[in-house]
Amino acid sequence: MATSMSAEGYGRRLTRAARAAEDAGLAGMIVTPGPLMVWLCGYTPARFRGLMTALVVTAQGQPRLLVPVAEEAAAEQAAGADALSVAAWAEGADPYGLLAKWLGQEGRYGVSDMTWARDLLALQRAAPGTSYLAVTEALPMLRAVKDTFEVERLAAAAAASDAVYEAVLGLRFAGRRESEVASDVARLLAENGHEVVAFAVVGSGANGADPRHEAGDRVIGSGDMVVLDFAGLRDGYGSNTGRTVHVGPPSPEERKVHEVVREAQQAAFEAVRPGAACQEIDRAARRVIKAAGYGEYVTHRTGRGIGALTHEPPFLVEGEQLPLVPGMCFSIEPGIYLPGRFGVRIGDIVTCTETGGRWLNASDRGLGVVE
Amino acid sequence: MATSMSAEGYGRRLTRAARAAEDAGLAGMIVTPGPLMVWLCGYTPARFRGLMTALVVTAQGQPRLLVPVAEEAAAEQAAGADALSVAAWAEGADPYGLLAKWLGQEGRYGVSDMTWARDLLALQRAAPGTSYLAVTEALPMLRAVKDTFEVERLAAAAAASDAVYEAVLGLRFAGRRESEVASDVARLLAENGHEVVAFAVVGSGANGADPRHEAGDRVIGSGDMVVLDFAGLRDGYGSNTGRTVHVGPPSPEERKVHEVVREAQQAAFEAVRPGAACQEIDRAARRVIKAAGYGEYVTHRTGRGIGALTHEPPFLVEGEQLPLVPGMCFSIEPGIYLPGRFGVRIGDIVTCTETGGRWLNASDRGLGVVE
Repeated sequence: MATSMSAEGYGRRLTRAARAAEDAGLAGMIVTPGPLMVWLCGYTPARFRGLMTALVVTAQGQPRLLVPVAEEAAAEQAAGADALSVAAWAEGADPYGLLAKWLGQEGRYGVSDMTWARDLLALQRAAPGTSYLAVTEALPMLRAVKDTFEVERLAAAAAASDAVYEAVLGLRFAGRRESEVASDVARLLAENGHEVVAFAVVGSGANGADPRHEAGDRVIGSGDMVVLDFAGLRDGYGSNTGRTVHVGPPSPEERKVHEVVREAQQAAFEAVRPGAACQEIDRAARRVIKAAGYGEYVTHRTGRGIGALTHEPPFLVEGEQLPLVPGMCFSIEPGIYLPGRFGVRIGDIVTCTETGGRWLNASDRGLGVVE
Repeated sequence: MATSMSAEGYGRRLTRAARAAEDAGLAGMIVTPGPLMVWLCGYTPARFRGLMTALVVTAQGQPRLLVPVAEEAAAEQAAGADALSVAAWAEGADPYGLLAKWLGQEGRYGVSDMTWARDLLALQRAAPGTSYLAVTEALPMLRAVKDTFEVERLAAAAAASDAVYEAVLGLRFAGRRESEVASDVARLLAENGHEVVAFAVVGSGANGADPRHEAGDRVIGSGDMVVLDFAGLRDGYGSNTGRTVHVGPPSPEERKVHEVVREAQQAAFEAVRPGAACQEIDRAARRVIKAAGYGEYVTHRTGRGIGALTHEPPFLVEGEQLPLVPGMCFSIEPGIYLPGRFGVRIGDIVTCTETGGRWLNASDRGLGVVE
């Protein structure tokens, strides 16, 4: 995980979180171990055995981190520890009662999405006057706008993903099962610095027309279109590349469908600018595909945010009116899926800058030809 | 994970869960992906991206598994699928509304400890007349009593852990850092079939007197006592072995303290029988240590349950009056910690049978001498 940011950087994030909570009408937020805690204070318990651990951020006062006594020394060493105060609860003590005292008699708090039900229920019981809302629902924008540190990490992950795709183009496809190629892709992700392989989709022929297909037993043949889509975490930040390749020379129709998706991706990219609603990016891609006569073969949203998770807000989908803000990073990955025949998807990570979109991936977006 | 049990076996567990919920005054239970879901129906989402997935078990009616449409086919293939009905929710639909319909207008439900706060909050909102309690709190015994299949898995994990300890005795200790030896132990766990290394404690000299010490930079010297404690998951079930070794010939005092801990462990083991309260096992160990004059140097509970998690109920600790039941599996791991000097811990996994305790670990419990 990324823990080499400065204490000041964490301090800024904690302040931002407190402000965001206040702006959303919340008294504060409670964050248990996971990506949001790492993001806010760089702390992750070395040996998490489910003992109550929580970061409390309120509009007033310093952020506080509650940990079991055994973890106190480690917590004091966390990268963002200077920006908060660490308190420890002893074995046999009631950590929920302690948290309840911090929260006060009432108030509406954000709670990290992945906080355990066990902890939330205990907190609801210990502080019956308080109420809770999932952080992602209450503050969808909280981690959506990346700071320079994060955009750099995402760019580095994207560069590693580019290197993976470069190597994938040299793999043998014809005569091998999708699952074998997928194993190679997963290995290449690991070899290129990814500590987590999130997925490695290889959808050949008609399998490529199912946007949810992962990789199966089908043996890839000459003449197949193959949808590739791989993602992982590198140094704590997500990468994702979607490409469609062809085994041997493609037909004019295959070229055409690929070209439509590419134009749709480009149109979506060009729609990226501060203030544009998320749904406008989705619409820009769909417009191109619809105009080319493939509108009914679009089956998924155009993109979604990426950061410490491979999938997170914002979502580039019809109905999402959230405006883009410089620093947001997301996938743009339109596709056309012709049932029983083949699919085409092209996906890259883009960040919104003051002047428009910036590609974080740089690998070739053309129809790759493989053997 | 262990998924090769028969559908009938899962059916029995689901029925047991429904009965246990009813006996505890619950209308049923809601279980999201994790060890409890695997235990109940052998299902774990292949590619879990946080899309609402829940198993609902009620006193009346067949258990139901709600999954996102994309996972429906995979869920139908789960080992325990024949014992339940699978329903899918489409993208854009409201899975919480669907769950709320299943639950009815009111009722108190158990919810798996690790269910996300996001899901619990959405469910509380969708079914405002319902209330919730963490499964481990409501039904601490639910997974505590292992069936034959599970005891066999735990015995196999224990045998692998025995092999690890055998190999550890051949490692070089003197002149190496604790962390280096810990890396070797972790490697040996993996080589002996563990898919997860939970921890590998190497506490030499005074570090061994801190029962929470993991492994540090200290260079192990000749004459050191070294506390070893390693655990992991093998084939979905936990193993844990605690041993204390000495670099070169031990002193009479070191031998004596070790012998006291060994006798304490044996006394605790002999206290194991159906109907004995958990705290009696803890007391049996403490009695021996206290009689030997080391009572003030005992700093942790004598043991805890083990199964699909390395730490789970029951807890062998003062105040826990839960009676032991045949099939329960737990660690017995007393210790004496002499601050600034050294520590001794001896830990093994034991199962309660109709006639008393049965060791699952078989490796030598004497004071190992290493180089």
